[in-house]
Amino acid sequence: MDGKKLKIGIIGLGCIGRGVMELIKENREDILKNSGVDLELAKVCDLQKVDTMGFEYTNDFNEILNDEEIDVVIELIGGTGLAKTIVEGALKKKKNVVTANKALLAKFGKELVPLAKDNGVEINYEASVGGGIPIIEALKNSLVSNKINSIYGIVNGTCNYILTQMRDNKLPFDVALKEAQKKGFAEADPALDINGGDSAHKAIVLGFTSFGIFEELDNIIVEGIEDVSALDMIMANDLGYEIKLLAVLKKEGNEVDIRVHPVMISKEHLLSKVDNELNAIFVEGNFVGPTLFYGKGAGSHPTASAVVSDLVKIINQPGYCGVTEGNLTLKDSGEIETRYYLNMILKDVPGVLAKISKVLGDRNISLMAVSQKEKDKEYVPVIFLTHNAKEKDINAAISDIESLDCVKERPRKIRIVD
Amino acid sequence: MDGKKLKIGIIGLGCIGRGVMELIKENREDILKNSGVDLELAKVCDLQKVDTMGFEYTNDFNEILNDEEIDVVIELIGGTGLAKTIVEGALKKKKNVVTANKALLAKFGKELVPLAKDNGVEINYEASVGGGIPIIEALKNSLVSNKINSIYGIVNGTCNYILTQMRDNKLPFDVALKEAQKKGFAEADPALDINGGDSAHKAIVLGFTSFGIFEELDNIIVEGIEDVSALDMIMANDLGYEIKLLAVLKKEGNEVDIRVHPVMISKEHLLSKVDNELNAIFVEGNFVGPTLFYGKGAGSHPTASAVVSDLVKIINQPGYCGVTEGNLTLKDSGEIETRYYLNMILKDVPGVLAKISKVLGDRNISLMAVSQKEKDKEYVPVIFLTHNAKEKDINAAISDIESLDCVKERPRKIRIVD
Repeated sequence: MDGKKLKIGIIGLGCIGRGVMELIKENREDILKNSGVDLELAKVCDLQKVDTMGFEYTNDFNEILNDEEIDVVIELIGGTGLAKTIVEGALKKKKNVVTANKALLAKFGKELVPLAKDNGVEINYEASVGGGIPIIEALKNSLVSNKINSIYGIVNGTCNYILTQMRDNKLPFDVALKEAQKKGFAEADPALDINGGDSAHKAIVLGFTSFGIFEELDNIIVEGIEDVSALDMIMANDLGYEIKLLAVLKKEGNEVDIRVHPVMISKEHLLSKVDNELNAIFVEGNFVGPTLFYGKGAGSHPTASAVVSDLVKIINQPGYCGVTEGNLTLKDSGEIETRYYLNMILKDVPGVLAKISKVLGDRNISLMAVSQKEKDKEYVPVIFLTHNAKEKDINAAISDIESLDCVKERPRKIRIVD
Repeated sequence: MDGKKLKIGIIGLGCIGRGVMELIKENREDILKNSGVDLELAKVCDLQKVDTMGFEYTNDFNEILNDEEIDVVIELIGGTGLAKTIVEGALKKKKNVVTANKALLAKFGKELVPLAKDNGVEINYEASVGGGIPIIEALKNSLVSNKINSIYGIVNGTCNYILTQMRDNKLPFDVALKEAQKKGFAEADPALDINGGDSAHKAIVLGFTSFGIFEELDNIIVEGIEDVSALDMIMANDLGYEIKLLAVLKKEGNEVDIRVHPVMISKEHLLSKVDNELNAIFVEGNFVGPTLFYGKGAGSHPTASAVVSDLVKIINQPGYCGVTEGNLTLKDSGEIETRYYLNMILKDVPGVLAKISKVLGDRNISLMAVSQKEKDKEYVPVIFLTHNAKEKDINAAISDIESLDCVKERPRKIRIVD
C-alpha cells in the first residue's frame, strides 16, 4: 500500500525514545494501513550509543537538523536548555516538531508555538500532558465546538501513587514516597513531582491549549503534596473526600484561574476514583458538558503512543486546531474563592477555639464545622471546614493564627473542590 | 478572520438538530478562530416547520441534496429507511455526510463507508456512539498507533440510569423504568434501549471503527437488562461487583468477540463507577494500555458537540484515519469463555444442590461458590458462581437444569468481567 511518507529523526533515546522506536518497528504497517501515513524513522540521536534496533544512529543532533530530507524532529531529551536550541533550530529549518517536553513548553511555549506557525510547520505535544491520554487532541480538536469552562487534572502519577498508598496503607508521606521510589513510581530525585512543579508545567500547557493564555509559572499557585499528613487522609475519608493533587483551570468571565495544589474532592466525583499511578483529566465544555479522559500518564509505551499520534497528525491534520488568540487574563490568585479544610495544632485549653474563630471571622471567613480527634495532650490537632472564602483572606488569617501563643505551628490548608 | 467555508444542510430538526443550530449560532466565531473553519448553515429541513433560529428552512430534503453549493449533509432523522436514501443520495452527489444514526450505520455501514470513500468524501459519525464523548476520534486517530485489544462500553444512558436507580433505591426493574420515563431518561417506548438493541448498534459501529469488521446484528449476542432482579443487585454488591450493561469487543488472535449483555464488573474497575445516565468507554491498546473516555452519551447539546466536531474534521482531517481493511472474523459466540453468575429458583429439599452440581460438572463447568439467601420456603433463590466456562456449555447446562423437577423457572446468567 502506498502512503504519504514522513521522514523522522528522534533526538533523545531514553525511555520514551526507545518506546517510539519499538512502536514504529512493531506497528508501522498497521499505522500505514489505517492512517495512510508511512513513518520512516530515518535517524536517531543520543550522546551515547544505545541499542537502536537497526535504526541509523548518530551522536550529533545537527546531523538530524541539517538533513534536508527529514520532515519532523522528535525532541525527547527533556529540560529547557539544549532542548530549546533543538526545537527552535528545527522549526526555523521548517521542520515539524513533536515533543513530550512540558517544562520546555511551559517556559517557552509562548515563543515556540508562534514560531512554528510563522514557519508553516507544526509543533505537536500530545505526550506532554497525560502520557497516552489524548487530552490535547480532545481540547484542540474533538471539543473545538465548545467553549471550555473548566479543567481538573490528575496529571502527576507519582503524586497520585503516593497519595493512594498513604490512604490505603495508612502510611505517612515519607514512607509512601520511599515505597514509590522502590517500585519505580518515583524518581531518585522526586522533587519536581512532589512539589507540584511537573503538574504546574502541565497546567500551563493546558492553559494555552484551551484558553490561549501563555501564563508564567511564577504567577500561579503551585503547592505539592509534601505536607499532606496521615491525619488529613483520615479526616478526608471521614468527611467523604479523597485527597488528590490537581491542576485546576477555571474560566470566570474574562479571567482564568490556574493553579496546582492538593484538594479534597468528593468521593462522588469520578476523579476521586482515579488511583495509583493513573492520570485523568476532567473537562467541562459549554455544549458537551462534563467529560473525563483517563489512562496511563507516563511510561515508555503509553507516551510513545501519544508521540506517534502526533506524527500522523502532521500529515492528516495540518493546521491542527487550537485556541490561538485569547483575550483572557490570569485571575488574581488572592481573589480565588473556595471552601477550605484547615489543620491546626492547638493548645488544648479553654478559650482557644473562640480566639481562632474570632481571627477567622475578622477575615470574613465563616466556619461550617470544627472537629477535634484527640484529647488530653498539651497540643491537639483541630480541623476546621470553612464556607467559601477568598485565598487572600485565608492566607492572612493563617498568618494571624500562626502568631498566636496557642498555636504550635503554621496552620495548613487544603482546598475543597465541590 | 478568513477561514475555509463549509456550507451545511441539516436534515432532521429534532432534539439534536436543534442543538446543532444552537451550537453553530452561539460558537461559530470561536470555532472559526480556533479551527480556521467557518460553518455556514445554509439550509435546514424537516417535514414540519419548527423554530429554525433564522436559518433558511425547507420541507423538501431534495432541495438540500440538489443544492450544488452545499458541501455537507447532516442526517439527523434516524431510522434506516429514508435516512439511508438521504445518506446514499448525498454521498453519490459527492457531499460529505455527518450522522448520529447508529441504527443506519449498524445495518448499512458496510455499504455506506466504502461508498463515501469511492466518492472521495467523508462519512463522519462521532455522535453515533457515546454522544459528546470523542470516542470515534480516539479510535480512528488518537490511538491510531495502537492495535486495539479490547473495548468495554457503557453506551446506553437509559440502561445505566435504570441500573443505578435499582441499586441505590432498591427498586425492581419495572419501577425503576417508570421512574426513568418520568424523569426523561427513558423513552415512552424504551424497548430498543432496555433490550440491548441500541447498545448493539453501537457495538457494531465500534467494531468496524476499531477492527474493520462490519458485523451483522443477528450474529452477536444481545441481551438487555429486563431480567436483572433486585436479588441480583444485592448479590452483586455483596460479591464486590456492580451490574452494568456493556458492549464488549475483544480481539483474540484473528477473531473478535462482540456482544452486548449485562455484566458483573468489579467495584475496583473505573467503569463500575460510571453511574446514572453517563456513558463511558474503556479501551485497551497495545501501546497506550488502559484508557477510559467518559461523558454524556445523549442529549441535545453533547451530541451537537460531536456533530460539529465532525464538521470541522471534514476540512481539517480529510481522509480521517480508521481501520479500513480487516482480516478479523467474529468469534463463535459458543466459544466465548468467561465466569458466570447463575441465579436459580430451586426447591428447598435435600439433594438438589448435588443434582445441579452434577449437571454443571457434566458440562465442564466447575463452581467457585454457591450461596443461598433465604430459607423455609418451598422455592428459594440460589446463586452460583462458576470458574471460566464456555458460553455453549453454560447454555446447554441451563437448558438441562430448566428441565429438572426441582427448578421453578429457567435459570438466569450474568457474565462476570474480571
